[in-house]
Formats: sequence, C-alpha cells, structure tokens
Amino acid sequence: MELRIPAADDLHIHLRNDERTLAAVKAVREGGACRVLAMPNTSPALATGEDATKYRHYLVMQGADFDILTTIKLMPTTTPEMITEAARLGVSAGKQYPLGVTTNSEDGVSDFRAMYPVYEAMAQSDMVLSLHGEVPGAFVMDAETEFLDELHRIHRAFPKLRIVLEHITTQAAVEAVRSLPDNVVATITDHHLDITLDDVIGSTIQPHHFCKPVAKRPSDRKALNEVVREGHPSFFSGTDSAPHLIADKENACGCAGIFNAPYHMQFLATHFDALEMLPRLADFTSKFGAEFYRLPPSGEEIMLIKRDVLVPNTYDGIVPFKAGQTLTYDLAWI
Amino acid sequence: MELRIPAADDLHIHLRNDERTLAAVKAVREGGACRVLAMPNTSPALATGEDATKYRHYLVMQGADFDILTTIKLMPTTTPEMITEAARLGVSAGKQYPLGVTTNSEDGVSDFRAMYPVYEAMAQSDMVLSLHGEVPGAFVMDAETEFLDELHRIHRAFPKLRIVLEHITTQAAVEAVRSLPDNVVATITDHHLDITLDDVIGSTIQPHHFCKPVAKRPSDRKALNEVVREGHPSFFSGTDSAPHLIADKENACGCAGIFNAPYHMQFLATHFDALEMLPRLADFTSKFGAEFYRLPPSGEEIMLIKRDVLVPNTYDGIVPFKAGQTLTYDLAWI
Repeated sequence: MELRIPAADDLHIHLRNDERTLAAVKAVREGGACRVLAMPNTSPALATGEDATKYRHYLVMQGADFDILTTIKLMPTTTPEMITEAARLGVSAGKQYPLGVTTNSEDGVSDFRAMYPVYEAMAQSDMVLSLHGEVPGAFVMDAETEFLDELHRIHRAFPKLRIVLEHITTQAAVEAVRSLPDNVVATITDHHLDITLDDVIGSTIQPHHFCKPVAKRPSDRKALNEVVREGHPSFFSGTDSAPHLIADKENACGCAGIFNAPYHMQFLATHFDALEMLPRLADFTSKFGAEFYRLPPSGEEIMLIKRDVLVPNTYDGIVPFKAGQTLTYDLAWI
Repeated sequence: MELRIPAADDLHIHLRNDERTLAAVKAVREGGACRVLAMPNTSPALATGEDATKYRHYLVMQGADFDILTTIKLMPTTTPEMITEAARLGVSAGKQYPLGVTTNSEDGVSDFRAMYPVYEAMAQSDMVLSLHGEVPGAFVMDAETEFLDELHRIHRAFPKLRIVLEHITTQAAVEAVRSLPDNVVATITDHHLDITLDDVIGSTIQPHHFCKPVAKRPSDRKALNEVVREGHPSFFSGTDSAPHLIADKENACGCAGIFNAPYHMQFLATHFDALEMLPRLADFTSKFGAEFYRLPPSGEEIMLIKRDVLVPNTYDGIVPFKAGQTLTYDLAWI
C-alpha cells in the first residue's frame, strides 16, 4: 500500500531560536512537510515584521530547506502601525497568546478588547489573526470553551478578518468554528486526534503528553476526528510541534509542548488508516490550510508507504511523540 | 498564637516497605501524628492478617514510635476466611483498589459484585471497608463520581458495614457521603483542600502535585473545605501521604502520590487559619476519625505555634508537599 500525496503544510509549528532549532528544523522534512507557519513566541519574541524577516533568515541558516511563512506575536505593546509594516514585509499572521497560559506567554494578552485597533489593522491588511484560544486564569478544562465567546465577539466586530483558532481540543470548539463562515477556521494537532487527558494524568503523569491546551475528554477527541473524517475545509493540520529538551519536560515544573514534527505524516497516515479515513489525509494536511492561507500548490509530493517504523525514544535530546512505539506508515520524498 | 490540641490520627498513609520507609516513618511525628492507618499496597501487598502483623513489626523496627492500625488489601483472591482471620488478628480495615488506577494496583478489583462475600465477612467481623473510589477505565475526571453509584449499591447491600470513601476530591462525593448514615464516611487529604487540577497541569506540568484521585475543579475544592468548615463528623483527615523518590516522580511516566506527612499539621494549621476555621482543626484531625475507628483518646498532645516555617525543597530524597514554601504554623510536641 502506497499513498502519493502533496507534501504537508504544517500551519502551526515552533522552531525556537536556540540549541533546539537544528533538531526542530531537521524534523520538518523528515515528517513530510515542505511549508510551515513558524510561531513567534521565541525568546525574545518576534514583535515586528523586521523580527520575522530576520527570523526566517536565521532558520534558513539553521538548515531550513522548506518554505517558511512568518508570524509576529500580538502583545499589549503591538500597534496598528506595526501590523501594517509587518504585512508589507509579507508576514502571514499575527499570533495572540493569552497571558500566562503556556510557554513564553508572560507578555500575553489579558484584555482582548484593547487589541481591537490591532485587529482592525489586520483586517485592513488582510493579515491572519492566529489565536491561542484560552481565557487567562480560567480552569484548565474550561479555558478553551470559555474563550469561544471571545471568538464570536471578535468575529462579529471584524466579520472579514481571517481567524485561525489554533490547536483546538474540544467538541465545543469544533461546533463553534463549524457555525462560523469560512474565514474563521481551526487547526488540529496530531496529538489531539490521538490522546486524551487520561494519557497525561491517568494512572501515571506523563509530561511528554502535556501541551496547551491540554488534551481533553474522549468525547472531545471523537469530535475532532469526526470533523476531519467529514472533510470539513475549515479544519486543517497544524502540528503545534514544540521541541523541549528532556530535562525541561521531566522536572518539577515541566514545559508545555509535544514534539510531533519528525513523524508527523507517518503518524497521521497510521492514525487515519486505523480509522479508515486515509482518503481524507491529503485535504487535511496539504490542501485546506494552503487554501485558507492562499498558498499556491507547493508542487512537492511525498509517498506514504505501509511498513512498520519504530519511533526512537529520543531525537536529538528530545522525546518525540509516540516515542518507542511502532507506526505502520513510513515516508519517502519523491 | 498557640493552639494546643490532641495529636493527629492520620487515617490513611503509605509507609511502604523499602528504602523510603525510614523517611516515611520519621515524617509521621514531625507532622504531628501519633496514630496512623497504614495502607497495604506495599510490594508485595499485605494480603492476610499475618502479613499485616509482620508489617507492623517491620515498621516498628524502622523506628515507628506511633500507634499503627493495620490494613489488608482486598483483591480478587481475598476470601471471607481471610477476613475473619485478619479481624481476629486485629486488622482495622480492608482496603480495596480499583484495577490499574494508581500505584501498585495491578492486582486491584474490577468486578465489585464478586467481592460481596468478602464485604459480608467484613460486616460480620465489623472490619472497616476502605475504598479507593474510582471506576477502572473511566475518564480520569469522572472516575470518582462514577464510583458513587457503586458506593450506594454496596451500602444498600450491607447497610451496617462501616465504609470509608478515601481521599475524596469532588463535590459529588461530599454530597454522596453526606446523604448516607454515619457508618459511611470519607477521608480528605491535606492537598485536596489546597490544590486543583490547575496546580497539576496548568501552564506547566507538576508531578509533585499528581496523586490519585487527581485534584479536580475549584468548585470541588470549595465543597471539601466547606464540609470541613461545617464540622461534619463524617469527614476526617487522612493524608494519603506517599513517599516517591524524585526520580520516580520527575520522569516520562511519574508515580501518583504526594508526600505531605512531614508538614501535615503545620500545613493544616496554616490552611485552616487562612480560611478562618482553625477551631475546626482538632475535630478534623484528631477526633472524628478516632471515633469512627473506635479508638480511645491517644492522650498525646501537640502545640501549633504561629511562626514561619520554610518547607525544604527535599526531604530524604523526596519532594514534600509545599516544598520551598513558607507555612505560618510550626509544631511542637508537648
């Protein structure tokens, strides 16, 4: 069994700007992606179009041999002028983090209303608003669902603004995005199609399954898989792959993030095949997202080949998603 | 400010039977307890009255200078005859673990109905049934609530059986126990009065806050504190203190359990004072539980003294609850 499809667009990835970047960059093509949207919560953050442009150059110097769509981080200090300038420099999206809910979000937003002039500039520049959709300070199991009111408010205020609700984890988020027009979409990660909170804090505590938003209930996972099976074009793939060194995960206060990029398409082919929805894979990973971001076809293709692949226990000092497990699909570049 | 009260009865503690036992034993008096109910999920488990008796001797050899009430572990292999013999040897309780939900529960129970002959023998021997109340295989946030039906069924079948629903974490469990007669009671741990799931998997993942049942919602924590504030005699203190070496917590698959024994009463005095319910402390820690287990007054007393105490980062290779934090009450034996 072989499946030849366009290479993946990973429309949400963390490549960082430190000793982890080489591994993170290397993993992209190994996992079958040829285009990525690189998140701006590096340290320091990417605040301007110039920062984003420099970051793309940095990634290329680190070996990135794939297309990089850039982002800037929307912070309380972001101005409409910064948006206009970033758009002029080709930045694809502005990413907004809620204050304090995940890695490097100490400069995140708590007053969404105060960001409206920024959103207005984004709508005018046709820049995508990328949202980490959790309410700061809300209980961890409710934070995404409580954010959905905010999503509806932003959409009502800026009906033309293109919005991505990133890495959704709940049935409620699926239903909210489904209820909105096609300029409001969602990304779904590999791991949220696969794990639930039981895999994070079931009988043991498993930091390599911890990410934000955290995986939720079996019914939520089911809703995510169902909307992908349906082939709804408002839901597409973004890995949220985040490289954290083992010591930063396995400690008293471990970081949020799952490193799924190196076996991204191998895992998804395995997962989609198990759920008998392999024909939906290419649209999810390589079409709907590109259409939303108005990208031309990449022209690159990968072959997914039915044969066992053992995911290693570590990958350059990072524990990858599915470490030590066997996937049933391998990947080759054509 | 000083508070002189009877020393604590810790009616749920894990002292283990290995290199951690010395520290676990030493912590008991340091935390203000003079009597404990020692849990039987050692390795190997305490299956019989003879096992329990030997274990008490072992603990004394490890330096235990406090009264030890013993337990046996109820397993699919437990017989009514084993109950009768254990009762004859003075075992206080039979502890039942659901299959696979926590540390050393691989030999736990999944078919509760099959245990009824054992419960019958316990009722006849007046031995306490101690329940880890989670349904095996249920979603982690629902497992305790789903068990409450089972609790009601067991109580209906054995209305005279004395039952402890251990380390409850939910408003639903509070309401269930409150609705039942005074032979069905609950223990509440130190940590469940203090933390929620946000302290386990909020913006970071914190294995030293991970226990089973896992801490739940703010509304659940509120219900636990409210029932203690009310001074309801069916709710009393059991720390569920469990010593796990740092390496067994801070890894890819960390153990469940929080080591709160060494600062047990110092923490509770601090917590009760902050909630302005210090007058309820002695009943919760040193009276209601003893009455349920029909223990005479211990005759021992402790003094809780209002002065700052810094909880160390580690305690004999174990991270204690509240590590690195300052409590506002110290403790002295009288």
